[in-house]
Parts: sequence; C-alpha cells; structure tokens
Amino acid sequence: MRAITLESDGLHYQASHAEPTPAEGEVLVQVLQAGICETDLQLAQGYMGFRGILGHEFVGIAQAGTHAGRRVVGEINCNCRVCPTCQAGRPTHCPHRTVIGIDRHDGAFAQSVAIPEHNLHVVPEGVTDDQALFTEPLAAAFEILQQVAIESTDRIAILGDGRLGYLSAQVLSSVTDRITVFGKHGVKLLRFGHRGYEVVQIPSTDPVELPHHKFDVVVDCTGSTTGLPMAIHLVRPRGTVVLKTTVADRHELSLASIVIDEISVVGSRCGPFATALDALAGGQVDVDGLITDRYSLDQVNPAFASAVNPNSFKVVFEIGSASD
Amino acid sequence: MRAITLESDGLHYQASHAEPTPAEGEVLVQVLQAGICETDLQLAQGYMGFRGILGHEFVGIAQAGTHAGRRVVGEINCNCRVCPTCQAGRPTHCPHRTVIGIDRHDGAFAQSVAIPEHNLHVVPEGVTDDQALFTEPLAAAFEILQQVAIESTDRIAILGDGRLGYLSAQVLSSVTDRITVFGKHGVKLLRFGHRGYEVVQIPSTDPVELPHHKFDVVVDCTGSTTGLPMAIHLVRPRGTVVLKTTVADRHELSLASIVIDEISVVGSRCGPFATALDALAGGQVDVDGLITDRYSLDQVNPAFASAVNPNSFKVVFEIGSASD
Repeated sequence: MRAITLESDGLHYQASHAEPTPAEGEVLVQVLQAGICETDLQLAQGYMGFRGILGHEFVGIAQAGTHAGRRVVGEINCNCRVCPTCQAGRPTHCPHRTVIGIDRHDGAFAQSVAIPEHNLHVVPEGVTDDQALFTEPLAAAFEILQQVAIESTDRIAILGDGRLGYLSAQVLSSVTDRITVFGKHGVKLLRFGHRGYEVVQIPSTDPVELPHHKFDVVVDCTGSTTGLPMAIHLVRPRGTVVLKTTVADRHELSLASIVIDEISVVGSRCGPFATALDALAGGQVDVDGLITDRYSLDQVNPAFASAVNPNSFKVVFEIGSASD
Repeated sequence: MRAITLESDGLHYQASHAEPTPAEGEVLVQVLQAGICETDLQLAQGYMGFRGILGHEFVGIAQAGTHAGRRVVGEINCNCRVCPTCQAGRPTHCPHRTVIGIDRHDGAFAQSVAIPEHNLHVVPEGVTDDQALFTEPLAAAFEILQQVAIESTDRIAILGDGRLGYLSAQVLSSVTDRITVFGKHGVKLLRFGHRGYEVVQIPSTDPVELPHHKFDVVVDCTGSTTGLPMAIHLVRPRGTVVLKTTVADRHELSLASIVIDEISVVGSRCGPFATALDALAGGQVDVDGLITDRYSLDQVNPAFASAVNPNSFKVVFEIGSASD
C-alpha cells in the first residue's frame, strides 16, 4: 500500500509498504482522508522519537467488526482496558498504551490503518468527510471544558491562531463570549475576526507590551515554547492556564510568577470523540472551509511545507474513496 | 533601633537604624522574635530586588490600635482593600500591595516594624512565642488545602525536608496518612520519620530512579529548580503538583509531560493566619523543638550561615522581650 513513514533521516513516501496486520481486537480501516496536525510537525522534528507510519487525524471505512462498511473516526490512544489506570477511568493515560501515529503504533498516512475496534466511532450521516477529519482536534478542544470550570463571565485568551486555537475558541464561545485571540498571522486572524472574536496581532513575542493579569483563563495553543511565558503574563492571579502545546524543545523560563500569582497550569490533551461528533452533527462548531490544501501521499514534501506555511490552515492527504 | 538591612552589596547589621514611621492604618509592633525563611535566603541572593529591612516571620507586641499591648503576628501582604482584586476576595493578590520584608515594605529583622492594623492577629494565650513564629509558614501550608481537594485515599509526596515541608506534611496528614517525604538530608529526614511519615533520601537529583507516576499530589517545597522536574516525574497522570517554591533562578525543563499526562501545576503562596493560629492553639500541629539556632541581630552573618546549614532547622533572631 501507499504510506508515509518517518525514519531517522526524515519523512519518506513508500509506494509499496506492507499492509498493517491487525492485532487482537483491532480492525483495518481504509483511510479516506488524513490531516496533518501540529504534533505531526513536532514528531517530524524528533519529538517522542517516533518511527513508522505517521498520521492520527483521519476518517475512513471500517473493513471488519461491528462497524464494517461504515465511515468511522478513531480515538488515538490504544489502551489495555485492564490496568488500574484504565479501570480508574483514565484510559487515555494507560501506561501500556500505544498511540496511533505518535507512539509505537502505525498511523493513518496510509491506505490502511489498524485500529482497536473499541476506539472507533461511526460518523453521523450528515457529517461530511471533511468535517469528520476535525473530530480528533475538536475532541481535544472539548477536553478543556472537562478539566476547567469556565463561567459565562470569564475573560478567555486563546494564544495561537492555528487550527486548535480556532476549534478551542468555538468550543469556549459556547460558555462565554469574552474571547480574545492572540496570534502572529494576520491572514489566520481574519478567520477569527469573522466569527466575532477580538483579535490581537503580536508582532513579537516580547510579553512586556501585552495586557498583564487581564484574563481568567488563557489557553496556549501556540505549539511553541513562547506560549507559556506569554500565558503567565496574561492570566490574572489565581487564574488558569490551559497548556495544549506539546513541544520537543525545553522551556527556559522563570516560574516564580506561578507561585506568586497562585496560577494553575493545567496540561490538556485528548478529549471526548462522542461530544465532538455531536457538535459537528448539530452544527454547534463550524469547520467548513478550514481545509486549505489537499495532497496525495506521494506529495509528502509539499504537503509538510504547506503545513508550516502561515497562509495554510488545514492540510489534508486525500488517500482513498468509498468506491475504491 | 537595631535592624538588618539588605543592600546592593548584601546584608548589613545596623546598630542605629531610624524607627519606622507608620503609614495611615499602620501600627508599630515591637518585635520579640523573627525567623529566617527560605524566601529570605532567596531575597539575599537578589530575588525580587528587595532593598531595606528584611524579615516577614515574626511575633511581637502591638504598640497602638485595638490590639495595643497584646502579642500579635501579622499577615505579610499590605493590600489596598478597595481595588477590584481586593473586592473580589483576593486581597493577597492586590496589584497595589507591598509585602513586609519582601517587596517595598520594611520588615521585622528590627526592633520595630510598621504593620497595617488589619493585618494583625492576636496570638492566643496558650501559644508560645516560639510557636507563634510559625504562623506565617503554617498558614502557607494550610493554603494547599484551600486550593486542592485532597481525598483521604490520596498518596501525597512532599519534596523537601525543610520547614515548609514539615509543616505541609503535618497539615496534609489531617486528611490522609499516605505521605512520603523526599529529602536530601538524613538529619532533617529523621524528624519526619519520627512522626511516622515514609521518608526517601535522594542522593542525587536524577529523577530516573524515583518512582514514576506514583502520587496523586506532589508538593514541591524544595526551594530549588530541581523540585518541579522531580514532581512531574512522581505525580500520576491527571494528578496535581503544588508548587510552593519561589526561586530567582530560571527553570530549564521540558513541559511536554505536563500536557501528555494532563498534570495540574498549582502555584501556592500565602494562606489563612486564623486557621494556622487555631491549629497551633489546638495542638493539631506540633512545632516544638523546631528552632535549632538563636541569634541576636548583630550576628547576621552566622545566623544566615546557620540558615543554609543542613543541620539547622529553624533559625531565629531574638530581638526583644515583653519587659523591654
């Protein structure tokens, strides 16, 4: 099959990679589309030391099991379901887990991917393939509401004008309309402005000129080590910083403000797929028009170049169709 | 009056410093005893850029106002009481505040200190001067319970075998008996062992050999930049790290684990004096025998040398007596 692998010397298109062999409990999914995520860019730079087929945001058609023949999306954490952590209701933190396209489990930049059947969610009829592709990052945005109690009067800052910032802003706007988005890219910020969010373009990362102690909750979606110091500067005493950014780089920063201002910094990762699919089906979240670039798997280099281009928003591999 | 000042070239004993002039709402307090705290050591190394009379842990006798002639301790944040932050119930975070002996307000390593009258708390009859000296750090330990909901089944790790670690362990042991203390100093750890806490002596700061993901809550009282990476290593996914350490140094660390493990890092500072005094009066917290070294103000250099000596626990300046 066609696939994109990450090796020690970088990304490679494979014209005839071996098909995955489903492990016990796994089913093969024929991939229709798969999106490039910020984490993929980090992985390509060495984060997690991943080797194998990349890709964890996908929509496809289940080839076996209960959902055979239906369109599905898949949760990315492959957990054991029996350890104390799984039994305690934290399966996404299972110490034995592998993670699709991220940690010791081949991913979805391929014609076929093996997924544990209990990770699969059927895509509702009215949700298009393009929309379904946002289930995983949208679920990650909904995770914020599961972790932090946000009030309708809370002033929220979103740091980062990319995909996760856009989805997070929409999710949080269901609770409060006091949302300000800080980003570097005028083109991307337009998209936020059109939805009515206040936007602030930051020409530099020097936080000195940014408002101090102004926000109750700050969500760092920058994907950069510059996000956390900026968030600490913006958040009010006893406020909350939600850290969405996973970066390979080490931070070098002073944490005295976290103590002096009694700030809570909450790491936030994967979220509830069912909630995300419901929001897509019900139209509460709008993801139309976000896919700016479409490539085939053999165009791996231009695709990844697009993904880091500020004028792109979501870059997608078109891999198969229902008639294949 | 006699006093210890921190200048750009270090600590100085002043044999005849000017008496403080109480501002509106302040009263003079004749200082009986004052303790050296980890923060004082940090301030002496340049933290906060403080200049003036050091000292914020004290017991003394109010010289005027409602409590005139009575033994008092004093909250250290001098707030405005009228700004939105004060009115919102966060007076310790007042943006206009000064902090006694820490930030633009002369402190208690002196025969007399000026304190806002509403910061004063009368020391109950049965609480000795030595015990009362621990009100401020004990209140800081009680702050943990105000910020984090701790369950009786929670496994707690305390990092640091010093004073704040010892008080925090006692406060948390009112909720759970599953407490493990990690420290570098065998002599100091004995004190914890005698109270029945599990103790682990760490010969190095390499976290690799420490238990991974084992604790529900980890309290960093190390006063060192090595504390947070160790805490992140010890805490379980979705667990909480309470950061008590304020250090001048910058941290250089990877924060990816905070996101991947969805850890909450909660900065924690000053706490409720009334709760601390109640606990001292009721005997729920035992601070007897913790003062290992006593000095007069002119012995500033040996006193600060003792405060960094691992065999010392609490170092105190004896400054005045009720009969002075």
